[in-house]
Amino acid sequence: MADKAILLIMDGLGDLPVLGSQFSAPANAKRATGNRPLTPLQAARKPNMDKLASAGMQGLMSTIKRGIVPGSDTAHLQLLGYGPEKYYPGRGPLEALGAGMKLIEGDVAFRANFATISGDRITDRRAGRLDSQVAKQLEKEANVQMESIQFIFKATSEHRGALVLRGAGLSANVSPTDPHHLGFLETSRPLDPGEGARKTSDAINEFTKTVAARLEASPINAERKKKGMLPANAILVRGGGMYKPVPQFSEMHGISGACVAGGALYKGVSRFVGMDVLDVKGATGTKSTDLRAKGRAALEALKTHDFVFVHVKATDSFSHDGDAKGKADFISKVDKELIPVLAKSGAALIITGDHSTVCARKDHTGYEVPILACEEGGRSDGQMKFDEISAMRGGLGHVRGKDVMPVILNMIGKARMYGS
Amino acid sequence: MADKAILLIMDGLGDLPVLGSQFSAPANAKRATGNRPLTPLQAARKPNMDKLASAGMQGLMSTIKRGIVPGSDTAHLQLLGYGPEKYYPGRGPLEALGAGMKLIEGDVAFRANFATISGDRITDRRAGRLDSQVAKQLEKEANVQMESIQFIFKATSEHRGALVLRGAGLSANVSPTDPHHLGFLETSRPLDPGEGARKTSDAINEFTKTVAARLEASPINAERKKKGMLPANAILVRGGGMYKPVPQFSEMHGISGACVAGGALYKGVSRFVGMDVLDVKGATGTKSTDLRAKGRAALEALKTHDFVFVHVKATDSFSHDGDAKGKADFISKVDKELIPVLAKSGAALIITGDHSTVCARKDHTGYEVPILACEEGGRSDGQMKFDEISAMRGGLGHVRGKDVMPVILNMIGKARMYGS
Repeated sequence: MADKAILLIMDGLGDLPVLGSQFSAPANAKRATGNRPLTPLQAARKPNMDKLASAGMQGLMSTIKRGIVPGSDTAHLQLLGYGPEKYYPGRGPLEALGAGMKLIEGDVAFRANFATISGDRITDRRAGRLDSQVAKQLEKEANVQMESIQFIFKATSEHRGALVLRGAGLSANVSPTDPHHLGFLETSRPLDPGEGARKTSDAINEFTKTVAARLEASPINAERKKKGMLPANAILVRGGGMYKPVPQFSEMHGISGACVAGGALYKGVSRFVGMDVLDVKGATGTKSTDLRAKGRAALEALKTHDFVFVHVKATDSFSHDGDAKGKADFISKVDKELIPVLAKSGAALIITGDHSTVCARKDHTGYEVPILACEEGGRSDGQMKFDEISAMRGGLGHVRGKDVMPVILNMIGKARMYGS
Repeated sequence: MADKAILLIMDGLGDLPVLGSQFSAPANAKRATGNRPLTPLQAARKPNMDKLASAGMQGLMSTIKRGIVPGSDTAHLQLLGYGPEKYYPGRGPLEALGAGMKLIEGDVAFRANFATISGDRITDRRAGRLDSQVAKQLEKEANVQMESIQFIFKATSEHRGALVLRGAGLSANVSPTDPHHLGFLETSRPLDPGEGARKTSDAINEFTKTVAARLEASPINAERKKKGMLPANAILVRGGGMYKPVPQFSEMHGISGACVAGGALYKGVSRFVGMDVLDVKGATGTKSTDLRAKGRAALEALKTHDFVFVHVKATDSFSHDGDAKGKADFISKVDKELIPVLAKSGAALIITGDHSTVCARKDHTGYEVPILACEEGGRSDGQMKFDEISAMRGGLGHVRGKDVMPVILNMIGKARMYGS
């Protein structure tokens, strides 16, 4: 029994059997399934995860409920013990926190991105996939004060960023200006008859106009146009939400928590719930992330925290690209470079995904995700491999995302007794 | 199919694999698991339970929810069909009822125990593990009327007892005087701003002072001191709760129920829900309880009741002592002395625990508990043994404590149809 735990989320881990015999699956995987196609997790070469599987228990998890397709934001909130039906603030505040912005109660935050417009027409939603450094230089044009509202914009990676509106009496119940596809810049509209929604949507429309003028006048854009590049002459917003503090992780669960992640959203969710977010060099949230650096950071964090949440993004990215072989290979890499480091920590180890991102559909789905729980001296269910099919016969059975934190707290002896 | 049922709860039954090869496990258990350690239930010699397992179905039960660590009180309420989130009155009233005290609506009851104090300092929380007979003689010193409040104290076993406050306008929302460890006598404080909490905490503090003086002045304590024994000169209280009647068992489930238990709490829970509690000579709730007497009492009770709840405490006691071998041996004893009697009754037989008390942790945990359901002519899941690991593959799957009474009512044909 351990008194500390690591929760490893491989984003979008679950999948459907998609890899046929044309794929160079490991020989043993082939033998086990005959000519059946394999899921990326089945096809991966993963002796370390399989060793954990044979020592521990696995099952299948519905992050929200059976069949429900979770977003990355709601899924992670749920897995960390914050039911999204109660605690979901919208995507904007989580992205803003992930970008390192400080929020105060009543702030309304959006995901935002630089775009190229011509009049009202959007000619490129990413302003030619703007370079991160150029975006940083343009940032100041979107930091404006208009009447009683402060607009705080932060450029993050490439054309992406977050926008925070700060002021009294705002509302997040307004429509976005980003149409999510090529087309026309939308006018933000209030979505309820309240004063706050009207005030906020008016302010966003005013901001959009003002900032477009400022960007258009920027010498950087003049230079870009001269070079035949698309100007970054507009900011589109979406995913608005209002920030309100929630009970801190240590208060909610009685343990301290740290986060090792590359992607901004996962850092944002962790900051939102009051976990310590580590700055890990090389943890990029991309396919080339430094898994060994993440492992080392997790071990370091375990010295001062009861619980470490480690997030790996690329499994999801490969799935969105429909690249099942890439997904399997990346899982093999996780098995080789990250799992042994986590396993030797002596902490209870829980491995799962936030949802099943299905390569054949290139999108999130509501198929259950395999989950594996392993601890020194724990029960073993006799399954020898960790994958979607073995998990069907696992000792954990079918669990929900909301069960995960209680199961972890119990494993490390930190659960509060209900009754006496 | 039977028309009556027995629910056997072996308290704290579930466990983790802890018994290694140094333990003289039965040869067949060793063969089945290779060199893996065994849980006490796996290691026990239990041909009778295994015979039931091969005839019936087993599964794993989370008494409250996955991972949640249940107290004994909430667990038993839940298993008898009384969800604790709605029906839990606190530990005090259940202990008082278990001690045979009669409660009326509005009574506030506590667990109480004799202690030795010196000034405000507690020198022994158990007054030298006071002898039950001496405690009985001192009982009257704690039965006092103060202003409008009647204090009713009953000594039960050794230093233990229960205290009931009776009067208008009381509240259980007050802090205990028992610090739960050596230290200082606590002052009871109101936990809400209401008049009832203030009145009650004031009364408890007055009671504590008054009774300490009365006990100090008792010739019994003078005699103890003369002999160099610790005086029982204070009463500490904890686990306060207010009594309010709940729907009776027969009304709730449409069947009559009886309880065969040694431990006071389990009798208390049964009285609380309106079951008949049998007085069984030799049923002590200890490791030396008379299992055969309990079996005979259960058969007798079945003649006049549809449902008999049989409770065995020692599995939990061995676990709290960290004695896995003792736990396994006691399970073997239950198998030999109790199971054959219950099995020959012809009643549907459901065997489980209220939670997993893990020997390696000496405490309640949230690990699932194996549950076995067996009836003449029922389905069989093909498992040959009854234990935590076989239960993972059992036909009942993963159930919750709240499922148990409906499953039983269905087995004996006493469930009310939902719809028509």
